[in-house]
Formats: sequence, C-alpha cells, structure tokens
Amino acid sequence: MNPVPDAAPLASLPGAQYLAEIREQPAALRRLLEHRAEFARVGEAAKRHRTGIVRMVGHGSSDNAASYGVYAFGLLPGLTAVRDSISLLVYYDAELDLRGSTVIALSQSGRTPDVLEYVERARKGGAFTIAVTNEPDSELAGVAEAVLPLCAGAELAVAATKTYSTQLAALGLLAGCLAGRCDELADRLGEVADQLEEHLPELELHSSSLGVPFASVARMFVIGRGPEFATAREIALKLLETCQIAAEPLTATDLAHGPVAALDPLFPVWVVASADETLDAVVDATARARQTGATVVASGTAADALVDAQYLVPVPKPRLALLSPLLSVVPGQLFAGAVARAKGLDPDKPRGLSKVTLAR
Amino acid sequence: MNPVPDAAPLASLPGAQYLAEIREQPAALRRLLEHRAEFARVGEAAKRHRTGIVRMVGHGSSDNAASYGVYAFGLLPGLTAVRDSISLLVYYDAELDLRGSTVIALSQSGRTPDVLEYVERARKGGAFTIAVTNEPDSELAGVAEAVLPLCAGAELAVAATKTYSTQLAALGLLAGCLAGRCDELADRLGEVADQLEEHLPELELHSSSLGVPFASVARMFVIGRGPEFATAREIALKLLETCQIAAEPLTATDLAHGPVAALDPLFPVWVVASADETLDAVVDATARARQTGATVVASGTAADALVDAQYLVPVPKPRLALLSPLLSVVPGQLFAGAVARAKGLDPDKPRGLSKVTLAR
Repeated sequence: MNPVPDAAPLASLPGAQYLAEIREQPAALRRLLEHRAEFARVGEAAKRHRTGIVRMVGHGSSDNAASYGVYAFGLLPGLTAVRDSISLLVYYDAELDLRGSTVIALSQSGRTPDVLEYVERARKGGAFTIAVTNEPDSELAGVAEAVLPLCAGAELAVAATKTYSTQLAALGLLAGCLAGRCDELADRLGEVADQLEEHLPELELHSSSLGVPFASVARMFVIGRGPEFATAREIALKLLETCQIAAEPLTATDLAHGPVAALDPLFPVWVVASADETLDAVVDATARARQTGATVVASGTAADALVDAQYLVPVPKPRLALLSPLLSVVPGQLFAGAVARAKGLDPDKPRGLSKVTLAR
Repeated sequence: MNPVPDAAPLASLPGAQYLAEIREQPAALRRLLEHRAEFARVGEAAKRHRTGIVRMVGHGSSDNAASYGVYAFGLLPGLTAVRDSISLLVYYDAELDLRGSTVIALSQSGRTPDVLEYVERARKGGAFTIAVTNEPDSELAGVAEAVLPLCAGAELAVAATKTYSTQLAALGLLAGCLAGRCDELADRLGEVADQLEEHLPELELHSSSLGVPFASVARMFVIGRGPEFATAREIALKLLETCQIAAEPLTATDLAHGPVAALDPLFPVWVVASADETLDAVVDATARARQTGATVVASGTAADALVDAQYLVPVPKPRLALLSPLLSVVPGQLFAGAVARAKGLDPDKPRGLSKVTLAR
C-alpha cells in the first residue's frame, strides 16, 4: 500500500516558500544567462592575470558549490581549482604566495565575515578576486575586483536552493569562458533550464512520495563522485538542515574505506549515479551498501544502472555531462522538503538557523 | 552512579589488537624520527623541483592525514597544499599542468589502486612524486620517485591508528624540512612522543569511562578547526568504522551554516578545542550545540575553555601548537574502542571491512 499522496503545500503552509524557490530554478538560471557578457569579461580579466590556480572560498551550500568548481575548472580550462582553507589565511596568517591566483568568493548574502576578510587579504597578496553573490551591492562585492551576480532573486527560505543551482551555473559558465567556450556553456546551461522546467512535475511526484517512508529515518549517507560529490554534499546538508537527519556525504570510494561498516537496515543510502567515467565505482559502492541491508535510493542521470536500489528518482541527461549536478540536486531538494513535511518540520524556517550566517 | 569500570581487554579479547596499536604510537613515532635524514633529503629534492603546490592523495585515514598536511605545509614552508581530486586525473583525464607540483601519495598498504594510478599519471605529467607508506617495498613505493617510510610496524587491526599518527608526523616533518626546520620539527615530534607516552594511562582512563554512556548513541558530530579538522575527520571515521555511529566531521563554522539544525539531546557532539587562533570560533560553536540540548564532550589542548561541556577529555599542550593533532586524536581512538566494546563490537575486525581496501 502506498501512503496517502503528499500534496504540495499551499502558499500559507510550512515549506511553501522552499518549494516555490525550488520551482523558480529554471527562471533563475535563465536570468543568470542574460549576464553572459559579464562572465566573458571577467573570464578575460582572469586570463590576463595569468591564473595558475583558482581558490574558492565559502561556507555551507557555497562550499558545496565549490566542490563542483573543482571539476568545472579542472575539465574545461584545465586549471587546478581548490576549496581553499579560509582559516589558514584569516586566522593563522599563513604567508602564502597568492600571485597567479584567482579567488572566487561564494557568498549568497555577500556578508559572510571570514569570506570577506579572506578576500581582503588575498587581494592585498596579489590575487585577482571575484565575488559571486546574490547581492551585487553587498560589502563582499565592494571588496572584490570583479562581481558576478547570481540573479536568483530574493531567497526567503532559510535552506538555500536556487542560489545553490545558480552558483553551479556561475562556476560552470566562468570555467567555460576561461576555456574559450563561453557561448557553448551558456547554450548548454539554457538547455538544462529547459530540461529542468519540463521534468519538475515528474521529479516532484517521485520525490514527494518518499516523504512518509523516510519520516522515521535518523541517519543517511549520500553518495556521489566527481562533479556529483557536490550534489551529495548539498543533499546531505538539506537533510541536516530541514529534516534533522544525520546525513553524511561520501564519495563512492570513501564508503569502502570505512564508513560501510556503519550501515544496516536503519541507515539508508541516497546514491547519485552519473552516466560518466565513475559509474562503475558507484555501482560497486551501491552493491556493498545493499549487502548490509541498507535501503538504497538511486538518483542521478544513471539511476537505472543501480539495479539493487529499492527507490528510483532519475533525472534527465544534459548534453554536457558536466552539467548533470544542476539537475541531480533537485530530487534531493524535493525529497528533503517532503521528509520535513512528513515529520511536521518547516523547511522554510529550520530550528536554530537564520538566513544570513554571521558565525565565525 | 558510574558504570562498572571498563577494564582493558585481554590479549585474546575483541579490541585487544586495536588497543595495543594505540599504545604503540609513541614507539612508532620514535622509529619514524630515526629516518629524519631521509626526510631532509626528500625535502631538498622537492625544493630543487621548485615546488609551487603540494598535492596530497589518499583515501580514508590517509585522506584525513592530508587535511593536516594543508596546515603543516601552509604554516611551515608557506606552501599551498591541497587534498587533490583523484578522480579528475584518473577517471576524467583532466589535462592539468603538473610541473612545479610535488605529489604526496598516502597509502598505508601502498596498494590503493587509484592512488597508484594517480602517481603514475602525475609523474608522467612532470610532478615530483613521493610515496608515504608503511610498506616501502610496495608497488606504490616502486612507482614514486621518492619513498618516506612510516615505520609504524605491522598494523593488524582494521581500523588504522598508529599509521595515521605516523602519517601526521611524516607530513609535519617533511613540511619542516621544506621550511629549513628539519631538526626543530624532529625534536618537537620527539617531545610529543614523550608526552603521549606519559599521558596514555590517564587518557585511557578518561576515554574508556565514556564507553557505556555512549553505547546507545546513533549519531554524533565531531568538531575541529584548522589543523584539528583532520582530528575531527579521523575520530568520526573511527566511530563509523568501529561503533556503527553515524559520526560526521565539521568545522566549527560548518556547524553554524546548517547542521546545527539537526542537533537535539539524542545527537551528542565531540569538540576538539585547540589553544590557538580558532578557539573563539570553537567556543561559540560549542555554546550553540549545547543550546539544542546536545551532550558535549570537550577534548583537545583547550578542552578546559569549553565550560558548557558535560565530559572533559583534555590532552597536554605540545610546545609547537601545530603538533596538537598528534595528541588530540588519541582520546578519540580510545573512545571509539571503548564504545565498540560496550556495544559488543570488535574494533579489530569491523563488519564488512578488510585491512587493505582495493575498491575503486
């Protein structure tokens, strides 16, 4: 028997804002793409700076987006891109040579204190600094040499959704511009916005049906590899924030190096499988998880390859595989919202959080 | 009332091997330091290579040790050191410029397949490659240009302990050599071995008394920042491997950016506080955690500063604060062993794991 279908919340109900913002993602992506000329200009400036390394900084969802940037810059312009340590520069005063570095500061609010301080120090140290923010008039935008707007529109739910997917798009587009493929990436991202819009109703149906079955779950792993490790991190964060589930992101290989020993039937696993070079590793990891009795949800563009899974939430394949994470995060966002509703929690206002985090 | 004291297991009982190897750590550190001349030679070779970036690769505990390397290389020679993406080079064939890179491959067994392949590719691409391994005759040692031995002795328990702490020592010593401070670091590490030996009985007493109180815990966060983020990752991995606790490592700032919403009295937090520039942030994070009703265990060299904590497992301060993680991981290793015993699990042989992980 299936549980009673979980209807989408009315505008006045808990989680309505969160769901509305998930639905706005295609429109937000299209708004960002209207600024493609700015991305091209900033890409040229980074080239003139002779960028040898891209240093990304951010916290929470912004740091998850940076995990995607590692692959976008690595695969498109062939640049080493790292999620840099903020504390090394800001708290420990490390004397690093920052010439030849391009810094990308990711902060939706443009107010994150230690990201601001990192940018100030890096700029003084000779780095080319770019702020990627939803608030182009923020303090962060003021201290960086270049600003790229997310154009996500106001995000009111505390748990980020459309600012995350526009961060992915911004990193992908900038990486494309550094590779001389600005127009191509913009076109491919436009297609992804169309695919997402077309498939959203079906994704909502699939994901929301999982709310009740997972309402009693206390812990989960979320598995992804390569560019989809960012997706695993972001889905795990949504589950922590909105559902009080202890959700931990792991690469397929991480799982085998220890954590698999913790799995049992009380500990389900969400797997993001991509139709790319890492698929065999992800299939192996899924089989290991199933051997422990853990329930497996298969998602991603290659969800069908995970024949052991009990639940299937596939997403369509984009023409450029590197852009899959823009699609594969959405079932996770929707799933977190559905589980929160099933548990009587409000994804718009998770307990103990505020929209702008000023913590050190 | 205190639970009946948890006696150390006899040689024939579950967890005896794991505990014996924890106790061997001072001796293992001293054996590694006998090889200081090799570290000095490899450091000189890395300087001749004009190292601009240090790329560390490894899985599981080895990857956790790499988190420490970010700070050791950042603070001693002022070099950017990163936990590099293995999949970018090995699975996705990214065309990165690896000249001016020094690769440090961390693999206790020297047999991890994708670490081997990474080293082969990086060496062809112009990187200077160093294998840091407990098996100097392994295949990994054969493919790298330089080999640094861990000298930890045979490690038979599946959950790594002495190979992890010797990896920290190896990274710290090599970083010291690159900074022209080889002898100083070797001396400071020798002092840490002495401190650890002196305080082990007391650490065993404190940590093992927590086994029964935490036997019914299903999930935990482990908090650390800066060099102690490696400690947080390694303690969380021990808990996952040996205790079936869903333990997730977070920096103090990560906690505020979302995960704090998941905390409640069923979700305890282990905090590693260091007497360094990040202490204020760690104190703030601890207060936030306590507000949710979560139980807090305070550990690290500045455990006393966490006045909200219900349990206290402090470690002595080394003369060089950067070396604190060699001491602060030990209460976590002991705690994991005590919880496993209290749950009737065998830390020597966690379910579903083998000592050498050959997973992709």
